Amino acid sequence: MKIDLNSDLGESFGVYRVGNDRSILENLSSANVACGFHAGDPSVMERTVQEAARTGVAVGAHPGFPDLMGFGRREMACTPDEIYAYCLYQIGAISAMCRAKGISLQHVKPHGALYNMAAKDPCLAEAIACATRDAAPGLILMGLANSIFREEAARVDVPFAAEAFADRAYRNDGSLQPRSEKGSVIHDPEEASARVIKMVTTGVITSIDGEEISMDPDSICLHGDTPEAVEMSFVIRERLREAGVEICNLKEVLSNRMKY
Amino acid sequence: MKIDLNSDLGESFGVYRVGNDRSILENLSSANVACGFHAGDPSVMERTVQEAARTGVAVGAHPGFPDLMGFGRREMACTPDEIYAYCLYQIGAISAMCRAKGISLQHVKPHGALYNMAAKDPCLAEAIACATRDAAPGLILMGLANSIFREEAARVDVPFAAEAFADRAYRNDGSLQPRSEKGSVIHDPEEASARVIKMVTTGVITSIDGEEISMDPDSICLHGDTPEAVEMSFVIRERLREAGVEICNLKEVLSNRMKY
Amino acid sequence: MKIDLNSDLGESFGVYRVGNDRSILENLSSANVACGFHAGDPSVMERTVQEAARTGVAVGAHPGFPDLMGFGRREMACTPDEIYAYCLYQIGAISAMCRAKGISLQHVKPHGALYNMAAKDPCLAEAIACATRDAAPGLILMGLANSIFREEAARVDVPFAAEAFADRAYRNDGSLQPRSEKGSVIHDPEEASARVIKMVTTGVITSIDGEEISMDPDSICLHGDTPEAVEMSFVIRERLREAGVEICNLKEVLSNRMKY
Amino acid sequence: MKIDLNSDLGESFGVYRVGNDRSILENLSSANVACGFHAGDPSVMERTVQEAARTGVAVGAHPGFPDLMGFGRREMACTPDEIYAYCLYQIGAISAMCRAKGISLQHVKPHGALYNMAAKDPCLAEAIACATRDAAPGLILMGLANSIFREEAARVDVPFAAEAFADRAYRNDGSLQPRSEKGSVIHDPEEASARVIKMVTTGVITSIDGEEISMDPDSICLHGDTPEAVEMSFVIRERLREAGVEICNLKEVLSNRMKY
Repeated sequence: MKIDLNSDLGESFGVYRVGNDRSILENLSSANVACGFHAGDPSVMERTVQEAARTGVAVGAHPGFPDLMGFGRREMACTPDEIYAYCLYQIGAISAMCRAKGISLQHVKPHGALYNMAAKDPCLAEAIACATRDAAPGLILMGLANSIFREEAARVDVPFAAEAFADRAYRNDGSLQPRSEKGSVIHDPEEASARVIKMVTTGVITSIDGEEISMDPDSICLHGDTPEAVEMSFVIRERLREAGVEICNLKEVLSNRMKY
Repeated sequence: MKIDLNSDLGESFGVYRVGNDRSILENLSSANVACGFHAGDPSVMERTVQEAARTGVAVGAHPGFPDLMGFGRREMACTPDEIYAYCLYQIGAISAMCRAKGISLQHVKPHGALYNMAAKDPCLAEAIACATRDAAPGLILMGLANSIFREEAARVDVPFAAEAFADRAYRNDGSLQPRSEKGSVIHDPEEASARVIKMVTTGVITSIDGEEISMDPDSICLHGDTPEAVEMSFVIRERLREAGVEICNLKEVLSNRMKY
Repeated sequence: MKIDLNSDLGESFGVYRVGNDRSILENLSSANVACGFHAGDPSVMERTVQEAARTGVAVGAHPGFPDLMGFGRREMACTPDEIYAYCLYQIGAISAMCRAKGISLQHVKPHGALYNMAAKDPCLAEAIACATRDAAPGLILMGLANSIFREEAARVDVPFAAEAFADRAYRNDGSLQPRSEKGSVIHDPEEASARVIKMVTTGVITSIDGEEISMDPDSICLHGDTPEAVEMSFVIRERLREAGVEICNLKEVLSNRMKY
Repeated sequence: MKIDLNSDLGESFGVYRVGNDRSILENLSSANVACGFHAGDPSVMERTVQEAARTGVAVGAHPGFPDLMGFGRREMACTPDEIYAYCLYQIGAISAMCRAKGISLQHVKPHGALYNMAAKDPCLAEAIACATRDAAPGLILMGLANSIFREEAARVDVPFAAEAFADRAYRNDGSLQPRSEKGSVIHDPEEASARVIKMVTTGVITSIDGEEISMDPDSICLHGDTPEAVEMSFVIRERLREAGVEICNLKEVLSNRMKY
């Protein structure tokens, strides 16, 4: 069994520093790197890609809304055409950074409000999938498991990777329990690890209401900016290894799936 | 004989429209497209690249300082490392736009204050040349004829194209007569055409002091945003054709040179 | 009878020029000046305020979303606290420009998507009203007639001015016919003038369905950026004068109302 | 004897947090608050001004270049007219924040590269002084002691306050020893305190070459973003008090000077 571990990195900007990128990187197989719209600047991007290349972690574009003040977390009423152009732009920028560091961009995962809106709006999901297809050859679109991302990616012939969250509770319909509600975030690394192992090995997870629901991710998202982030990512990686699950990047996970 | 005709396009932003891109495009072989830092936004870039692809005009990146308010015309004390990252970012972004429209990015020409500073500062010129080399395969760096750009491009093994200005007077040392001085800009299309034909066919131009100086460009820059821009570009193109000079893009001009 | 004529001005940015500010100004009594978030930059603001001061036109702040790329026309999910801070900031900035030119800021009218969202969302309308009250003494909030703006302004004790549009059709409930629908925009200056005179002299207007509805504005909004803008504003001003309606700024309109 | 203690605060932006504003505030009499161009956003500004008002610390505008990516530390070739407009804008914005929190803006101190350039360029210093005079009544301009700021402020009739740095070495001509040179920054709080007390009580300081030079500041700048910032500010405040020097804001320091 194989699984990818991803996290959002490179979210610093100018003199502003956030995240524990170096420590988290050691426990990842894929990094989603901010592309300058909601976070990240060209110098931060370059450093982040270089560090990922050095540690053998695959790099993905992490495009967001043009809203640095709101960190891309506020919904914006952009048209699908605008979203297509914004994604193309951001994917291209990080792609050049990868080329400069001797690696190829692996995937695209939209950020924040863009991710959440596109998970429910087929026009936005399609725009992002098209940009993923058009910006560079062979890119994988990563999006929320059990959402419309998969269908839209398939429609425009883009490989898709479903992600699940290590530290979040799910509802019976497979959607995320909103952060504003009680029990939505799991803080204990061992509990999170147990949930991840269950998903990866059985394709099932227990919802917040106690039901067994289908959850068969290609990648597990680890948060990089919480106080417990480094420990959480370390424990999950170790428990997965102990359970015999191989941690490898998205390309390998998807090609492994195709074999079976 | 062959020459490239280039102009700066795609300098609109959001609701703001500048330039006569469609009319100018018809007379060009290469377009330098703004990349979102000093002008241009992703939607403008996409439209501009599409239009260039449709008309068979080669596309270049036109990276500038991160200064929309000043249109990239104000000097900024950025480090060479910052300039390298800013150029990599902008070149990558426009490169993805080209791929999406079925063409390849041809060249890189820095904009405004960045162009002028780099023409005199070898560290900046080198940073831009390195970004040109690293962002995508086969890119040509375009810069001021008779400046340090050529040397810096050669040092990092990047093909170089020298550009001369159709409507600008030159001093004896081959540098541009500053705009603030009398006689620095030529407004008459026939006079400009005659000067261009002389450069292209003899490798020589008459300086503002009446001296014959060496000027052997690969490309001629036409301005796209002046009142006389459309007529100027049309007349120059026609006169060049009448003089038996073939107008073709940079790639062809450079490979033609290599033959002789 | 008295009425204020207002228009949105100062929407240029850097090298980008829009609108016919100088020509429109001659026909206005109040100008809403963009404050740098959705349009306008400090130099444009200074020039615009100076021109308004010179022609005796009262100045209002025209705050918008922080979205230059979308010209403040795209909805953004900002919190009321953020909107309060954004408005305070923008009102303060234009207020200092006014002081520097020897005049006082008269009013605040939100722009674009912020205007439209706040006309329906009491929390946003209240946030804007509070910023209007807190930023400078004596400011008037200008907003859509027949909307919740009036109630929210009253709640926080801010003087309110209702505006109607000279060139827009209204529905039976007093709301604007959306631009996307047929007949929503009136292009004939004489027709627009007749509608304005009817509102101002009788407090009534004919809806797009032919019903007489209440419409009793303190100010009439004239567009400044359409091809017919200058002629439209000139004709409306002339017809109002011929009908014996005095055109004067908001302060005078409101104090005149209080007398009766 | 009286002296003002100032520090640069409110330099966070969006989700990005820098500085120890709350802890530093307790040891200050004046706070220079970033105004959204090089750092700070409207929400951060509002919180910072509120906190300053709560603790009785006077607020100053801290305007900078429009360069968030470079934190306003990179020189930009703006014209004096642009600088005038940029300062007017930023001072107005923070001034409205102050009014909303029930206090008055006290002073203006330019930031970073703008501060350093204006200390040597009379045209920039004059532009900043004019904006200080025009933006709001009674503002004080704060600038480098022994620089051209004082003369330019006097020329346009703006009250001036000279600042010296607690933790920086000075050269014989009264200018700051550049940070790049050895011994330019003092890290020991007791040494810094002794230097401050000497300046304040005798109007003299020992240069890095051992000469006694004139240094008679109205305010002492404490850094807010270094690891030792909180301790440094606490020790300096305590030592000043023990030496019988009263710490009070700029307005009081200047009016005290006028008495003698």
